[in-house]
Amino acid sequence: MFTKLCRPVPSINFRTVTCFCKPRQLNKYYNIIARSNCSASSSFLCDKNVIFVAGLGDIGLDTSKELLKRDLKNLVILDRIDKPELVCELKELNPKTKVTFMPYDVTVPIAESKKLLKKIFDKLKCVDILINGAGILDDHKIEATIAVNYTGLVNTTTAIMDFWDIRKGGPGGIICNIGSVTGFNPITQVPVYSGTKAAVVNFTSSLAKLAPITGVTAYTVNPGITRTSLVAKFNSWLDVEPDVAELLLEHPTQSTKECAASFVKAIEKNKNGGLWFLDQGILEDIKWDKHWDPCI
Amino acid sequence: MFTKLCRPVPSINFRTVTCFCKPRQLNKYYNIIARSNCSASSSFLCDKNVIFVAGLGDIGLDTSKELLKRDLKNLVILDRIDKPELVCELKELNPKTKVTFMPYDVTVPIAESKKLLKKIFDKLKCVDILINGAGILDDHKIEATIAVNYTGLVNTTTAIMDFWDIRKGGPGGIICNIGSVTGFNPITQVPVYSGTKAAVVNFTSSLAKLAPITGVTAYTVNPGITRTSLVAKFNSWLDVEPDVAELLLEHPTQSTKECAASFVKAIEKNKNGGLWFLDQGILEDIKWDKHWDPCI
Repeated sequence: MFTKLCRPVPSINFRTVTCFCKPRQLNKYYNIIARSNCSASSSFLCDKNVIFVAGLGDIGLDTSKELLKRDLKNLVILDRIDKPELVCELKELNPKTKVTFMPYDVTVPIAESKKLLKKIFDKLKCVDILINGAGILDDHKIEATIAVNYTGLVNTTTAIMDFWDIRKGGPGGIICNIGSVTGFNPITQVPVYSGTKAAVVNFTSSLAKLAPITGVTAYTVNPGITRTSLVAKFNSWLDVEPDVAELLLEHPTQSTKECAASFVKAIEKNKNGGLWFLDQGILEDIKWDKHWDPCI
Repeated sequence: MFTKLCRPVPSINFRTVTCFCKPRQLNKYYNIIARSNCSASSSFLCDKNVIFVAGLGDIGLDTSKELLKRDLKNLVILDRIDKPELVCELKELNPKTKVTFMPYDVTVPIAESKKLLKKIFDKLKCVDILINGAGILDDHKIEATIAVNYTGLVNTTTAIMDFWDIRKGGPGGIICNIGSVTGFNPITQVPVYSGTKAAVVNFTSSLAKLAPITGVTAYTVNPGITRTSLVAKFNSWLDVEPDVAELLLEHPTQSTKECAASFVKAIEKNKNGGLWFLDQGILEDIKWDKHWDPCI
């Protein structure tokens, strides 16, 4: 039911409406463009406006490239550090998609996140999907790991609700949070990091269940061990295993390209509450055990 | 195997050794006291030195009272706000146990946690069990919820490793972390809180698996809905459900006394890696699903 948050202008065929904005926020020009860009067989992502936090990261960059194959309308990349050469490369990949970069550190106060989002919404009028992908892996840095991986993701999510929440007259939207397989079962040598990812998985499963109230659907993509610079070398908690990176990489892993392909497939499936497990080229929707139920 | 971290002085019967300190850290007097206080049939907790973070809280206070029935040697209560009348009440409950209160806010920098712990270790010589029980429930306060419920718990745990880690010549120890059933499956109306509890559950399961390296065992106690002041009234995330507290309390709950009884039973079971589910007077060790394995 929540894949149909889209509110089509009554006289327009459903398939031609590519934005989740309310009818009053759509204009004819926007819809005509949408129609001209997307064929009936095109991706769910065609002509969408997507914000990608950490879209220049290791997994982020290849996922941005994969997204650009889907003829988005706008890809707004928010990342801590500008990498103009990478942004240029992305801009050249598909002339149908406007790629924009804006600096964003997810650890800023939520008021700043809202300000930045307001700029984006003012410019694009509507945003369809927010991908929260900021993450660090260094169990020597407890505060930073938690601030980036969990607090930052929660704050960015909370900030965008100002624009999306149907209770405020917003159009709804889709949140794609990057968790990790360590949110299911930890890498014990990085308990702080793994804990933050469990928090992301749990938090996002709540968002999904709140969709009838907020109009905002949500799911997680949870990559297995992916050969990124993040994983090449990192600190374990209290150095319990100085060779944790090397040990991990002795087992089957996936490339960032494989991960990105599954990532975008998961986005296209657009399943509210999806717990996507992305490992070694495989994409699977995990079933979570029910240990109790608050019954509310 | 990790229930036997205790290193008995060779000539002393195992049951009489009540401290996890290394033999060199034990003195005869301490062991004689231990013997005289504890009968063969006495609780695992008899003559133990226990630090209880948030031991004056709603669940904390009744658990402190329950602990005091077990003839601890020392109960050091660390809490944010001193409540002298409650501390007095606890002191009077059992003359065999020395009850001490020290102010502690888990959100202080880790260096301060270490300083405070040093004072305690200097005074008691050894500490057997750390109970991390600080928690807040208010999804309007994102930063505070995460700082208290997850970061504070991680920092306090990390701080005590300076004194316990066997790699540093420490004697090992036991960590009892208070999670919540919402760490298994969330109360969707408080996704921020529930996420922090999932983090605690995941983090602690790592600690348990690291015990062969650190000598420190760990488990979580995860209360179901317990009739505390915390639960009587609290804010849901973005007010998605203003009556969340009332709705929760319409379903079967447990009293703080019931919770405390199960809590101390769980401590007495002393199971490394235990995922204790404490609800309506029932104590159950949850089996966690394995979705993947890092193989290291």
